[in-house]
Amino acid sequence: MPITRFSSSRTGYLWFVSNIPTVAELGENESLRRTVSRLNGSDFALVGSGDDAAVIKAQDGKFVVTTDTMIEDHDFRLIWSTGFDLGWKAVATNVSDVAAMGARPTSLVVAIAVPGSTPITFLEDFADGLKAACEQLAPGCGVVGGDLAASEKVFISVTAHGDLEGREPILRSGAKPGDVLAVAGTLGRAAAGLALLFSGDADAISAYDALVGVQKRPEPPIAAGIGLNATSMLDLSDGLAKDAARIAKASSVKLVIRSQDLQGFEAMIDDAAMRLGVSSSDWVIGGGEDHSLLATFAPDVEVPRAFKPIGYVAEGSGVYLDESPLGEVGWDSITG
Amino acid sequence: MPITRFSSSRTGYLWFVSNIPTVAELGENESLRRTVSRLNGSDFALVGSGDDAAVIKAQDGKFVVTTDTMIEDHDFRLIWSTGFDLGWKAVATNVSDVAAMGARPTSLVVAIAVPGSTPITFLEDFADGLKAACEQLAPGCGVVGGDLAASEKVFISVTAHGDLEGREPILRSGAKPGDVLAVAGTLGRAAAGLALLFSGDADAISAYDALVGVQKRPEPPIAAGIGLNATSMLDLSDGLAKDAARIAKASSVKLVIRSQDLQGFEAMIDDAAMRLGVSSSDWVIGGGEDHSLLATFAPDVEVPRAFKPIGYVAEGSGVYLDESPLGEVGWDSITG
Repeated sequence: MPITRFSSSRTGYLWFVSNIPTVAELGENESLRRTVSRLNGSDFALVGSGDDAAVIKAQDGKFVVTTDTMIEDHDFRLIWSTGFDLGWKAVATNVSDVAAMGARPTSLVVAIAVPGSTPITFLEDFADGLKAACEQLAPGCGVVGGDLAASEKVFISVTAHGDLEGREPILRSGAKPGDVLAVAGTLGRAAAGLALLFSGDADAISAYDALVGVQKRPEPPIAAGIGLNATSMLDLSDGLAKDAARIAKASSVKLVIRSQDLQGFEAMIDDAAMRLGVSSSDWVIGGGEDHSLLATFAPDVEVPRAFKPIGYVAEGSGVYLDESPLGEVGWDSITG
Repeated sequence: MPITRFSSSRTGYLWFVSNIPTVAELGENESLRRTVSRLNGSDFALVGSGDDAAVIKAQDGKFVVTTDTMIEDHDFRLIWSTGFDLGWKAVATNVSDVAAMGARPTSLVVAIAVPGSTPITFLEDFADGLKAACEQLAPGCGVVGGDLAASEKVFISVTAHGDLEGREPILRSGAKPGDVLAVAGTLGRAAAGLALLFSGDADAISAYDALVGVQKRPEPPIAAGIGLNATSMLDLSDGLAKDAARIAKASSVKLVIRSQDLQGFEAMIDDAAMRLGVSSSDWVIGGGEDHSLLATFAPDVEVPRAFKPIGYVAEGSGVYLDESPLGEVGWDSITG
């Protein structure tokens, strides 16, 4: 029971659309019905959405849970991202954290708040993005519950669950000196895409649409994380330097990244970096939101093909690029 | 990695406070550290907060999950509610949904977004409210993860988990003709509290502070729901009429409420209703947010003392007050 009846004079950026009913016109129940009807279920749901709560299988007697939030004008802009993009990204960023524990994503609950003036097609598009990302990134996983509310800005909060299938979770604290440091997925591409969007250079955005796509619809290597035989792992959301420092601190070790092993990542974004007059290595080292997996492997373990070695674990503390300590370059979700 | 660096000129209602650092001044990491350090853990957490995800025990091989959102100026106002109140209510409304499945609340993840200008004491107070509500309403349950972000308005999203301890969940769909309809907890008191706050009548608010307290810090009868031997149950969040209609629809039955059995609930709020010149029965039948439990019991089952019988289940459809069909009086979280 909200304390105010909804009224809004907001006109959305992209929403000069006639004949499409708004969320306020349809009301909560009908808006939810139209949205939820487009979703896939979860293969792990014993009771799906529609009751006070859902009931999810957790056959090994435990479950993994993580949550992440996306806020309009802080984490995305509606001039850049469609409802589909936002649904996709909300799934990708959360199932990536589940996979970073070595777990298989099983279920999501999704809360979204939108202005009442939002056309229902935005929510339907959002649902399509949720579904497509589940099907492509985490087959079997689906939305099992949620909440729809009114707000001035679009606000999305997702909680994701995973199944360790009898295994122990892969924490940040297990790296040991002598381990190999390796990454699965892209580095710096999401940051390049964001810089392109900020540049406002329509030609550049069009020329490098694959980079912009990584920013808007990241494709984290979920399958590479599930059941991985690693000593530590995390999801690269705030950038290589900052996230590597989290493993170094949690494991009480030093991580050494070899700059020559980053050259392949830099080469992928060199053209775009030159176009914008910036350094591709800054994007590779400091850029966030690739949602790649950074892991350490015991020396006697064969590093899986999805992972590219980029360094090693040593005695000590902090993160080094070759011989030089790396500051914690990266993003703070409050201060930027 | 948010797309904008935080800057805000907002001055909060209650925040003309000097010398207290703001969230923007402290940054995400330190703000989180100060907040999280005040929380209790969960007795069910195998891995608590601090990694990509938490790991929670689910000993019977399944878990219950539900989510709910609270948005400033839609679901609460900062002139009325403290950080403590909001933390308390965020827990109460979510664990109530878990209990409505017959499950024991085990763990919560909490996302909160606040303006950067928010004093850190607001978040600390919020954490104290989360902890106090867990300890009083759902002992053993605690916060196992979360997210802190920047936004113009305060936004709170909680996901709660529960353990069925080997039992089947209690759904909305199990009511049978002949069952007894009963409620545990208050009816109409939260609506009375809200009306008092809206009245702006300081004397009335003070005179009926217990009613205002139910609105700000509801105390749903969690223990009464866990392991209940009921045929159906739900959490009364949108009001007796609207929520009863959900059981009637899901179970394909008719629910008959006896008006004389509501008189005790009305008597509790008659004085406040007269003061505001409204009908106490409207609050009892249509008022939301009491987060009481509405359940149906097979005729051969003794109704537990926490539940007061208010009617019965019959063949048919819809909800009746004595002989008269009740419209779906209540709240829509989008249209009010």
